[in-house]
Amino acid sequence: MTTEQAEQSIAPRADFAEESSVEIVVDSFARTPDLRLKQLMTSLVEHVHAFVKDVEPTEEEWQRAVDFLTDVGHMCDDTRQEFVLLSDVLGVSMLVDAINHRKSAGATESTVLGPFHMVDSPRRELGANISLDHNGEPCVFAGQVRSSDGSPLPGALVDVWQANGDGYYDVQQPGVQPGLNLRGLFTADAHGRFWLRTVVPRYYPIPDDGPVGKLLAATDRHPNRPAHIHVIAEADGHTPLTTHLFVEGSPYLDSDAVFGVRQSLVRPVTTVDDPLRAEEYNVANPFRLIEFEIVLDPLTERHSHAN
Amino acid sequence: MTTEQAEQSIAPRADFAEESSVEIVVDSFARTPDLRLKQLMTSLVEHVHAFVKDVEPTEEEWQRAVDFLTDVGHMCDDTRQEFVLLSDVLGVSMLVDAINHRKSAGATESTVLGPFHMVDSPRRELGANISLDHNGEPCVFAGQVRSSDGSPLPGALVDVWQANGDGYYDVQQPGVQPGLNLRGLFTADAHGRFWLRTVVPRYYPIPDDGPVGKLLAATDRHPNRPAHIHVIAEADGHTPLTTHLFVEGSPYLDSDAVFGVRQSLVRPVTTVDDPLRAEEYNVANPFRLIEFEIVLDPLTERHSHAN
Repeated sequence: MTTEQAEQSIAPRADFAEESSVEIVVDSFARTPDLRLKQLMTSLVEHVHAFVKDVEPTEEEWQRAVDFLTDVGHMCDDTRQEFVLLSDVLGVSMLVDAINHRKSAGATESTVLGPFHMVDSPRRELGANISLDHNGEPCVFAGQVRSSDGSPLPGALVDVWQANGDGYYDVQQPGVQPGLNLRGLFTADAHGRFWLRTVVPRYYPIPDDGPVGKLLAATDRHPNRPAHIHVIAEADGHTPLTTHLFVEGSPYLDSDAVFGVRQSLVRPVTTVDDPLRAEEYNVANPFRLIEFEIVLDPLTERHSHAN
Repeated sequence: MTTEQAEQSIAPRADFAEESSVEIVVDSFARTPDLRLKQLMTSLVEHVHAFVKDVEPTEEEWQRAVDFLTDVGHMCDDTRQEFVLLSDVLGVSMLVDAINHRKSAGATESTVLGPFHMVDSPRRELGANISLDHNGEPCVFAGQVRSSDGSPLPGALVDVWQANGDGYYDVQQPGVQPGLNLRGLFTADAHGRFWLRTVVPRYYPIPDDGPVGKLLAATDRHPNRPAHIHVIAEADGHTPLTTHLFVEGSPYLDSDAVFGVRQSLVRPVTTVDDPLRAEEYNVANPFRLIEFEIVLDPLTERHSHAN
């Protein structure tokens, strides 16, 4: 034990007071053996106390906050994560995503994983139709995975999942939608290209029958996310990418309830009149098409060590 | 709708980015009809985002935070409030108490209510013995309720509750302790004086078999509170006071897990050899005594309106 530690443990703790509250509570975490945990608790105390001092809650408001957090906790079960929803609607999930996935200028931007990647996507052949319930406007989803220097990435993995034409994922409608509907794990060809058949997804509300939904209602916010297709792309020697493609023209592109939209990820649904391409994709001509080029960052030293 | 509002709703939302995250999320709460709720959400977003930017959590750390909060929520039921415990060990409960009960210089300081005032104390006659299980060292608890100008407050109400000599409240040991053990609501006499028979309470741990207990263990903090007697004092024309008396010499006076100790509230257990006073209190001579003078602030205009 150092002299400083001995003095800390002998000196009586000062009375709790508004002006010294952070110092007193931070000091209580002084012996935390895990230095990262100590840093997290220190910062948490600083910011939570600053918040309380800023708003000066009444005791009734503090009790309502306790009740709200309790309700959020009680809403959580194996298929519902209300604290993730709370993090989402406060922009915290996107902030954590942004901090952890700072991209080079040319790379495809990331956005949140979301709560619906709860089952592994089944491996499917290029060109397969992932719409098993045929609910929605048929379209082809195609693109190429490249490195940031423009070179194609053969054999890249492209994991795709999305809602149907009614705005629901398979896991939200067991017994209505077939299992593994609108999910697929594809391996890009020798040119890094991928293509598959699907439907244009619909916008949808995040689950809003719990306390987070009540918070949105009380703050005059809608619960909707604009139409999107989730994508995870991975290739050897590159940083994996978790992102969405957003459908141009969808409602709520300007007010995504979870702040996930990036303008660089918005793509149109075009109509293509080209018999050869239609034959290539095994669809009737003309056909609807969403194209999504994906650019991955090469692994840096830092990322290599982290992975 | 004002021109400014129309522009807000027409202007496309900027892409989410680390540097503009607060502005974007705060703007989403712009239409909150309840202005206090809007202020709370705005400040919450500012401080939570500042915390995230300060510590830059990994996605795994963010997930662990979600899991921790979920565990805290699942620990809550009708008799256990784990979010209050979390608030307590982070000093937030004491901070809210301090903000809401700023006292004049001479008034008795307040401290947290705690979770054990869950049943109404039974009305008892002055001098009654509230120790129904006789577990602990017998003592007299006595004092006087005065206004800040020194004048006694006849008929003041003094609500007392405490743990027994093993450090447990009645509600923690149903079937072991008699119901309403160590609880009493007393009416002070014509001189503002109150007295009752009880036992010297023992220090005790806050419930530490849940996620908050795990947090304390991981940060090398003990879960104990020093020995104390809870008091709520009320008198006409005065601000009600919720406080504790802390027992001088108790372990953990310098490291209360919930930061409730104020040096001005520490009192000794003295031995009194005085046959007349022993007779007055209906105890054998000599006897043990804790004295606690209580000074209440007169209601101000502001308090009068609030009540």
